[in-house]
Amino acid sequence: MAALSALVALSSRKHLVRAFTTSNVARSHSIIRSVDVTPAPALIHSGRSSLVRLFSASTDLSAEQKAVLEAQIKSKGDEIRALKDSGADKATVAPLVEELLALKAALDPSSAKPKKEKKKNNNGKKKEVKVDEQSDFITPRAEDYSKWYNDIIRVTGLAETSPVRGCMVIKPWGMSLWETVRDDLDKRIKEHGAENAYFPLLIPKSFLSKEAEHVDGFAKECAVVTHHRLTADPDGEKGLIADPEAELEDPLIIRPTSETMIWHMFKKWIISHRDLPVKINQWANVMRWELRTRPFLRTSEFLWQEGHTAHATREGAVEDSVAMINNYAKLCEELLAIPVVKGCKSPSERFAGAEETYTIEALMQNGWALQSGTSHFLGQSFGKAFDVTFQDKNGNQSDVWGTSWGVSTRLLGALIMTHSDDAGLVLPPKVAPLQIVIVPIQPKKNDVEGKAAMEAALDKLSDELKGAGLRVKVDDRDYVRNGAKYFEYERKGVPLRIELGPRDLAKGECVFKYRVGEEGKIAVNLSDVVSTATEGLDAMQKQLFDSASQRLKNGINTEATYEEMRDALKGDEASEFNGSGLYLVPWKCDAENEDKIKEECKATIRCYPLDHNKEGDIEGKTCFYSGEPATHMALFGRAF
Amino acid sequence: MAALSALVALSSRKHLVRAFTTSNVARSHSIIRSVDVTPAPALIHSGRSSLVRLFSASTDLSAEQKAVLEAQIKSKGDEIRALKDSGADKATVAPLVEELLALKAALDPSSAKPKKEKKKNNNGKKKEVKVDEQSDFITPRAEDYSKWYNDIIRVTGLAETSPVRGCMVIKPWGMSLWETVRDDLDKRIKEHGAENAYFPLLIPKSFLSKEAEHVDGFAKECAVVTHHRLTADPDGEKGLIADPEAELEDPLIIRPTSETMIWHMFKKWIISHRDLPVKINQWANVMRWELRTRPFLRTSEFLWQEGHTAHATREGAVEDSVAMINNYAKLCEELLAIPVVKGCKSPSERFAGAEETYTIEALMQNGWALQSGTSHFLGQSFGKAFDVTFQDKNGNQSDVWGTSWGVSTRLLGALIMTHSDDAGLVLPPKVAPLQIVIVPIQPKKNDVEGKAAMEAALDKLSDELKGAGLRVKVDDRDYVRNGAKYFEYERKGVPLRIELGPRDLAKGECVFKYRVGEEGKIAVNLSDVVSTATEGLDAMQKQLFDSASQRLKNGINTEATYEEMRDALKGDEASEFNGSGLYLVPWKCDAENEDKIKEECKATIRCYPLDHNKEGDIEGKTCFYSGEPATHMALFGRAF
Repeated sequence: MAALSALVALSSRKHLVRAFTTSNVARSHSIIRSVDVTPAPALIHSGRSSLVRLFSASTDLSAEQKAVLEAQIKSKGDEIRALKDSGADKATVAPLVEELLALKAALDPSSAKPKKEKKKNNNGKKKEVKVDEQSDFITPRAEDYSKWYNDIIRVTGLAETSPVRGCMVIKPWGMSLWETVRDDLDKRIKEHGAENAYFPLLIPKSFLSKEAEHVDGFAKECAVVTHHRLTADPDGEKGLIADPEAELEDPLIIRPTSETMIWHMFKKWIISHRDLPVKINQWANVMRWELRTRPFLRTSEFLWQEGHTAHATREGAVEDSVAMINNYAKLCEELLAIPVVKGCKSPSERFAGAEETYTIEALMQNGWALQSGTSHFLGQSFGKAFDVTFQDKNGNQSDVWGTSWGVSTRLLGALIMTHSDDAGLVLPPKVAPLQIVIVPIQPKKNDVEGKAAMEAALDKLSDELKGAGLRVKVDDRDYVRNGAKYFEYERKGVPLRIELGPRDLAKGECVFKYRVGEEGKIAVNLSDVVSTATEGLDAMQKQLFDSASQRLKNGINTEATYEEMRDALKGDEASEFNGSGLYLVPWKCDAENEDKIKEECKATIRCYPLDHNKEGDIEGKTCFYSGEPATHMALFGRAF
Repeated sequence: MAALSALVALSSRKHLVRAFTTSNVARSHSIIRSVDVTPAPALIHSGRSSLVRLFSASTDLSAEQKAVLEAQIKSKGDEIRALKDSGADKATVAPLVEELLALKAALDPSSAKPKKEKKKNNNGKKKEVKVDEQSDFITPRAEDYSKWYNDIIRVTGLAETSPVRGCMVIKPWGMSLWETVRDDLDKRIKEHGAENAYFPLLIPKSFLSKEAEHVDGFAKECAVVTHHRLTADPDGEKGLIADPEAELEDPLIIRPTSETMIWHMFKKWIISHRDLPVKINQWANVMRWELRTRPFLRTSEFLWQEGHTAHATREGAVEDSVAMINNYAKLCEELLAIPVVKGCKSPSERFAGAEETYTIEALMQNGWALQSGTSHFLGQSFGKAFDVTFQDKNGNQSDVWGTSWGVSTRLLGALIMTHSDDAGLVLPPKVAPLQIVIVPIQPKKNDVEGKAAMEAALDKLSDELKGAGLRVKVDDRDYVRNGAKYFEYERKGVPLRIELGPRDLAKGECVFKYRVGEEGKIAVNLSDVVSTATEGLDAMQKQLFDSASQRLKNGINTEATYEEMRDALKGDEASEFNGSGLYLVPWKCDAENEDKIKEECKATIRCYPLDHNKEGDIEGKTCFYSGEPATHMALFGRAF
C-alpha cells in the first residue's frame, strides 16, 4: 500500500486533468478524431433533428494535421458526389455528409453552421441549448459531462425516457449489456451457494412497519396500489378512473426491496439449524419514487438482483456479506474492467435496518464516485422483526442472523462513465454484446466470381471467429455506406472492426481496427485472425482496466486539508469533466459533523476503505475536520 | 390423419381411464409404490403437521406382494431401531418412520392411524379434510386431481402462496424450471430475429383507452397505483396510509401486458420501411387481478415473455405470428415433452385487439385443456390506435401491421399436469434442474481406505457426467438416511438416481434407478456410466413425449353428438382425474351458440385446430350444434 499511497499523494487537480487528457488522447484514433487532441469541434444533426449545435473549438492544428484534414475533406467530398450521382437516397448520404461536416469543423470551426436557426429567444435570458430527442450529437465531455452521458445513452440506443415519470425503456443494446452482467453474476451467485427464487411484486404496507428503521428508509417514496379496477368515469370527463368500489382494504406497495416479504417467508422455511444457512437470490424489478432521475443511475423503476440470506451465527452472516461484496468487486473488475474501492459505509449511510453496509465505490471520469453495489450485514434486526427463530443443536430457540446484497442496472451507468469517450461508447470486450463486426468492401457489381469469393471468405472468417467463442456479426447491408457503418459501430463501442475487401482477399489478408488501444489499421493474415483477435481483445480488456485503475489511483487526494477539500468539492458539479476526485482523510466518526460537511461540500463519506482501515492505519492521526483522534480513514467525495 | 382419426374414434371415457391407469402403472416403480396398482394407500404426516389424513385403500394384494411388503417392513424396522440406538435425532429418524408407516399402510390400511385427532366438528356438517400447509402428503390423483396438483407444488417446493392475494412465491426448484424454459426459449426468440428490451412496469391509464377492444379486455381487473408515498396515519389508528398529499394526478396501472407502452415507443422508432420489421421481446412480470387463482395456472402476478413486432405488410405480420406459435409448439414438444394442438381461437376467445389469435392447447391428465401459449396477429389495430406509420419505398405513409406473442410460468403447470404421478413430480430430463443424483452407500465408519476409495470414485463419476454436459449432484449428507434421500429425489422428479456402495465399487459397478420408464434397478459398469446415462435420459425424454402424445390422441373424442358432449362435460370438474377429454366436432362459427354451449357444458372452443381445418376438412359436414353447414372443425373442452 505504501507505493499506492505515494502515488496517490502526488495526485492533485492538475494531475487529474493531465490523466484524463492523456487517456483521452490514447483513445482517440479514428480518422476524424485523430486530430482531436483538444476537445473536438463537432456538429451533428440527424435526419429528423431540427436543432443543430455549435460550439467553438481549438484551431491549434499543426500544418501536418491541417494537410491530413484537407485531404480527408476532399476524399469525403468525392465519395459523396459519386454516391449522389449513383442515385443514392438521402438517408444513405446523410452519414457521410455528417462526417464531411465534422472534418470541416475540425479544420475550421466557423464552417460548422446551424442548418436551421433555432427560434430566437428575445427575452434576454441565457440561450438555452436544447438537444433534440432524435439528435445524434454527442456533447464532448469537456463541455458538459452530464450532457455527454445522456447523449451517449441516446445515440447508442442504450435506453430512452418513457412516458412514465422516472421510468426508462431499456433498448436492445442496453438490455444485451445487462443480460451479460446478469449471466456472469448469476454464475457467481450460484457458486456462492444461493438459489434463485421469485417473490411478489407487491408488499402489504403493514410489512414495511415491522422493522423500525426500514420503514423510515422506504415508506417515504414508494408506489402505492389502492384499487384493483378501472372503470369509466360516471361524469364522463376523466375517461377511466380508479373504481371507488374496488378499493383495497389494505393498500399494497410496489417493492422498493424485498427484505420484508422474504423474511416473512423465511419464518415458514426456517425451523432447525439444519435449515441454515438459507441463501436466496431474486432477479427482479423494484421501484422507488425518485424526484431527480438519471438513466441507469437513478430511476424510479430499475432492474436488479437482491440476495437474502439467513444464518445461525453472527460470524456466518458477516462472512456471507463480505464474500458477496468481494464477488461484486470481482464482477466489476473482471467483466466490466471497473476498479473499485471496497469499504464500509458510515453509520449515517447504512442501509435502513443494517448493522453494517459494505460497498464498492467506483470513480467516474468526472471525479464523482458511483456506489456500484452493496452488501448488508443485517444483524438480527429482520430475524427479530419477523420472529424468525431456529432450534439449535441443543434444542434452544435463537434469533436468525441475516444479510442482503444487490447490484442493479446502475452498473451500466458505471460502465459508460468509466470507459467511454467523445466518440461514443467504449465497451470492454468481455461485456460487449458484439465483439467483432466484419465489414466487407464489396467487389464491383459485375464481378460475379469476386462476389462469390467474398461470400465464401466472409462465411469462413465469421465461422472461425464464432467457433472460438467470439460474438461476431457480418454487416453486409448494401444500402449503408461503409463510412456510416464504421461511424455506427465506433459509437456503439464494438471493440474490433475487421474490414475485408477484394484487394485484401487477394493478399490473403484483412484489416483490423480496434475501438481503443492499438492506433491505426493493422493488416492481419487471414490464417492468423482468430489468434490475433483473441489476443487483441484480451489486451484491450486489460488495458481498459489498467487505465481505469490508474485514473482511480490518481483521482484520490490524500494530503488535502478540510478547507482544500471544501473549496474543491462544493462547486464540483456532475457536469464538470475534470472534477476534483475523492479525498482519503483521517476521520473521527461523527454523524453531526458528517451532516455539516455534506451541507458545506455537498460531499458524503463514500466509505471507510477496507484497505486503509487495517490495524495501525489511523495510529496517531487526527480527524481532518474535528482535530480529534481519528477512528477511521474515510473516503469523501461527490457522488451520483 | 386418417389413421389418427381412427385411433381417436376409438377413444371413450373408458379408454381414457385405461390409458391413465396403464401409464400410472408404468410409472410406479419405487419400493413402496411397486404394489400400487390400484390407488395406493398412504399416509403421511410431517414433523410439524398436526393433521393426518386417512383414507381407505385396496387390499387386493397377492400373496407375493404381501410377502415382499412384510420383508420390507421388517427390514425398515430394523433400520430404525439401529438408527435410534446410534443416538440419531428425531429429524433423522422421521423420514424412515414415515416410510415404515407407509409400508404398513400398504399392507394393512387399518394400521394407518391419525397421530392426533382433529378437533371434533360437532355441528353436523360434512367433515372438512384440511391439508396442513406444511404437510408432505400427496393426494392421489384418482382421489382429487386438483388437490394432487396443489400437493405436488407444495411438497416438491415448486411454489408457495404468499401473503399477497393471488400472488405466489416461486421457490428454487420451480424457479430453476422456469430458468431452463427461459434460456431455451430465449435462444429460439433470438433466432426468430427478436431482440430483448425492457419497458416500464407502470402504464398511464390513458394508454389503455387508445385501443377500444384492448381497454375492455384489460381495464377491468388491474392494479391501480394512485399515490407515491405512505405516511403515518394522523389519527394513529391505521399505521401507515397512502399520503393524501402524494396523490398522482393521473393514476398508473401495473402492466397486464405491454402492447400500449410498446406501440407508444414504436411510434418513435419507426419512420421508414428500412426500420421494419421491428421485433422486440421482453421478459417481465405482469399483473391481472384474478379472483380465482391456482399456482402457475392463474395468479395475479406472473412471469412471462411478451414479444411485439411491427411489419410493413399484412403477410409479414401473419407470417411472424404463425412462426412464433410454431416456436412455442416446438418448445413444448422438444423441451417439455408436451404435445400440443395448434389452432386458431374463435372470434369470442381472441386476444383483446387481435384479428387472429393462434394458440397451443395441451391436454392435462384430468382431461381438461390448458392454453399454453398464444400468438396474436394484431392487424393494424395498434398501429392505428398509436398512430404508427412508415414511409414506404414510394414515399407514401402507411399504417404499421403488428403481432404480439407470449408464454408464461403457466407452462410449469402444464409440465406438472402432463407427466407427474402419485409419487411426485416427473420431469423430462431436458428440463430437470438436476438430471442425475448420485447417492453413495458409505463404507463403515472405520474403513478409512474404503472411504477414500469411495470419495475418489464419486468425484470421478460426477466429473465424467458433468463433462458430458449433464446436471449432476452427489448427495453425501451424512445426517439423512438413503431411504429418505430416495424418497426426496423421487418426489422432486430427478430423472436418474445412481447408487454407489462399497460392494458395487468392488465390482466396478454402480446401480441406476430411473424415475420412470425402466423398471427396477440396473447394474451399470462404471466405465459405461456416461453413455448409458445419456442414452437412458434421452429414452426417458422420448418416452414421456410418446406417452403424452398417446394420451392426447386418446383424449380427443371425435364421434360425439352435442348431447353426449354436454352430459360428459357439464359435471367434469378439474378435480376428476379421469375426465372426459376434448371433443373435435364440425361447427358453424357463431358467438351466440358458443355462449349457450359455454353455459350448458362449461366448455369452450379451445381452438380450430390447424391440422383439421385444411381444405376439404369440413366438406359436407354440418354443425354438431346448429345442424347448419359447418365452417370449421372445432375442439371443445373444459379448460383451466
